[in-house]
Amino acid sequence: MAKILVINAGSSSIKWNLFSDKLEVEAKGVAQRIKMAEGILSLDYNGKKSDTITELPSFLETVKKLVAMWEENGIIKDFDEIGQVAFRIVNGGPHLQKTSEVTEESIKHLEESIDLAPVHNPGAIEAIKAFRTLLPNAKMTMHFDTAFHRTLPKLAYTYPINYSVTEELNIRKYGFHGLNHHYIALKSEEILGKKGVNVVSLHIGNGASLCAIENSQSVDTSMGFTPLAGVMMGTRSGDVDPSIIPYIMKHKNMSISDVMKMLNEQSGMLGVSQFSSDLRDIGKARLENPQAQFALDLYIQRIVDYLITYLNRIQGKIDAIVFTAGIGENDEYVREQVIKKVRLVNLTIDEAANKNRDFKDYKLISTKESEIPVYVIRAEEEMYIAKEASKFFN
Amino acid sequence: MAKILVINAGSSSIKWNLFSDKLEVEAKGVAQRIKMAEGILSLDYNGKKSDTITELPSFLETVKKLVAMWEENGIIKDFDEIGQVAFRIVNGGPHLQKTSEVTEESIKHLEESIDLAPVHNPGAIEAIKAFRTLLPNAKMTMHFDTAFHRTLPKLAYTYPINYSVTEELNIRKYGFHGLNHHYIALKSEEILGKKGVNVVSLHIGNGASLCAIENSQSVDTSMGFTPLAGVMMGTRSGDVDPSIIPYIMKHKNMSISDVMKMLNEQSGMLGVSQFSSDLRDIGKARLENPQAQFALDLYIQRIVDYLITYLNRIQGKIDAIVFTAGIGENDEYVREQVIKKVRLVNLTIDEAANKNRDFKDYKLISTKESEIPVYVIRAEEEMYIAKEASKFFN
Repeated sequence: MAKILVINAGSSSIKWNLFSDKLEVEAKGVAQRIKMAEGILSLDYNGKKSDTITELPSFLETVKKLVAMWEENGIIKDFDEIGQVAFRIVNGGPHLQKTSEVTEESIKHLEESIDLAPVHNPGAIEAIKAFRTLLPNAKMTMHFDTAFHRTLPKLAYTYPINYSVTEELNIRKYGFHGLNHHYIALKSEEILGKKGVNVVSLHIGNGASLCAIENSQSVDTSMGFTPLAGVMMGTRSGDVDPSIIPYIMKHKNMSISDVMKMLNEQSGMLGVSQFSSDLRDIGKARLENPQAQFALDLYIQRIVDYLITYLNRIQGKIDAIVFTAGIGENDEYVREQVIKKVRLVNLTIDEAANKNRDFKDYKLISTKESEIPVYVIRAEEEMYIAKEASKFFN
Repeated sequence: MAKILVINAGSSSIKWNLFSDKLEVEAKGVAQRIKMAEGILSLDYNGKKSDTITELPSFLETVKKLVAMWEENGIIKDFDEIGQVAFRIVNGGPHLQKTSEVTEESIKHLEESIDLAPVHNPGAIEAIKAFRTLLPNAKMTMHFDTAFHRTLPKLAYTYPINYSVTEELNIRKYGFHGLNHHYIALKSEEILGKKGVNVVSLHIGNGASLCAIENSQSVDTSMGFTPLAGVMMGTRSGDVDPSIIPYIMKHKNMSISDVMKMLNEQSGMLGVSQFSSDLRDIGKARLENPQAQFALDLYIQRIVDYLITYLNRIQGKIDAIVFTAGIGENDEYVREQVIKKVRLVNLTIDEAANKNRDFKDYKLISTKESEIPVYVIRAEEEMYIAKEASKFFN
């Protein structure tokens, strides 16, 4: 079996992980500032890390430079060693709801869905086209952050708006972070030694979403039609009264896209704290800066509100509450405060375990007295995609 | 002491209740279809009800006809018997957050706040001006549906958007139905025989909002900057992913006001069921019409999600869950289903008590085994306003 390359492309970046046929990471890196001045190619291989500054004028040129870099460093001997390329896609739209082969048709569906992920999908499409040109013999698959949520019941994915508009425009809760939420379900099965787990998964990074997992399937999630909805995030507001949009447009003389940009890029932790979207900065500043503490309190409250809703929503005994992703894995203060504000269920945190940063893929942070065990599990989107890809053509 | 007239004016209607100095309702009625063809003056006095069809070309003409009707029917002998007029106002904006005397200044503040309640405030302003002309000697007060929520903590009323916009435009959760939520707090104190109650109040009518009441004060509520937010309602969507607004604008070629009109007037129960905003129609149709059952399920789920959030939010033992307003008082199916879907707290409904429609001002509908008692309390906004008004000038 050949190597599997996992690609996560953004608007101006390509994050890549190269897996062996035994699904071990052989090399990884990221190309940043594509189409901008001073592109950067970062490489992490054989225990060595390096950054190369170089012009990256297009996705095609970037992929050419990546492949050349892999040859030069002896990561691959010839292009055909890369037997498979697997692309992470934020939203494939109504026609692409599960892992799919890259074909002319699936690329076309993706192009039709740019509106649903305007920041992420264009880069993904350009990356796919570049790799098809450079690696014409590799098999290719698309893996969607929406796919895990295709099991949402109609009651969870329908908005209470005019139903003819819902149907005509395919308006629905898609949900995101599904690659990791699904991984969390599978990893929880492994940790708990049982099939079909009931879990609330808290994926809290710069973007954040909670997922109610019942019998290892997604039954609700906090992001919506787009990744703007749900809890407060690094720069995104999450849920707000929709009426503030026309009010701001009128009184600030802004266009609808100006306001949406404000809600997506200048709100959330950055907008409320008025100095950083990064929880590490906020955490450091909170004791001296009341506005930083306030932003953090607001952030925590909104996570708690979704957590309790999903704890109530799941039918049957809940097996675990799981924190994951950047903040979920690393911010013990946020975890502790979230758990503390769950009043209807008796959850108790093991302070030492919560603070311990020296753990491999997961750790238990609750005591034996806790009504539901609370875990931290490291996000593993790339490995999850590589595994899915390795099984796809079999 | 003189009589107190309580006025609830809408965009084309004036609902009125005339109270004696002992705060007993002496007469009541409603003027409908103001500024439309075939106005209607309804009167309920001395056990007799009557409807008169007459032209109501303006609020001033309507008030003239009302006062004349009161004289003709012997409800009052001269105008000065009406010592006080109390107006219900949906939102007084940032400057009017508690019960206020009607003055040139307070009318000006109200006019500046029309944007915050564009459907309701213009009618209220016209009604105030008409009664000032017709009853120049009466004392007048404004009573706000937002006032009870002035105790919301900053954490509950702040949206996670750019804070400079929050401050510049006074964007905040106002909350509504406060006159009734406050009455529910006071009535609960009376029923439970204690001061400072912890209650979740579910005001479910054509408009609907939940209120988390801690120590008899509002600490959170589901409506927001406007009455569009929160749970699904008769014609309003409640919370949605804000991103669906620009998407619908683009793909249906609609303006922002078209979309807001759709969310306010053609969504909710009407929009999802596609045939009625009235829960009574939906309830009758649900067994034959799966879309009616679906709309009802969605409606119930969204109420449950807020209920569990507020049960978790309130600090300390919760004294009661209270259903009130049109649907809350009369729809046993909705009440039963909402309570059934609360899984984290052990609530048990007394079926016979839940179904009994023969009760005065309140009834208990839970059994002794219920962890929290569940009540139905009839909404009493007019009486509440009359009481507040009678104390205002003392």
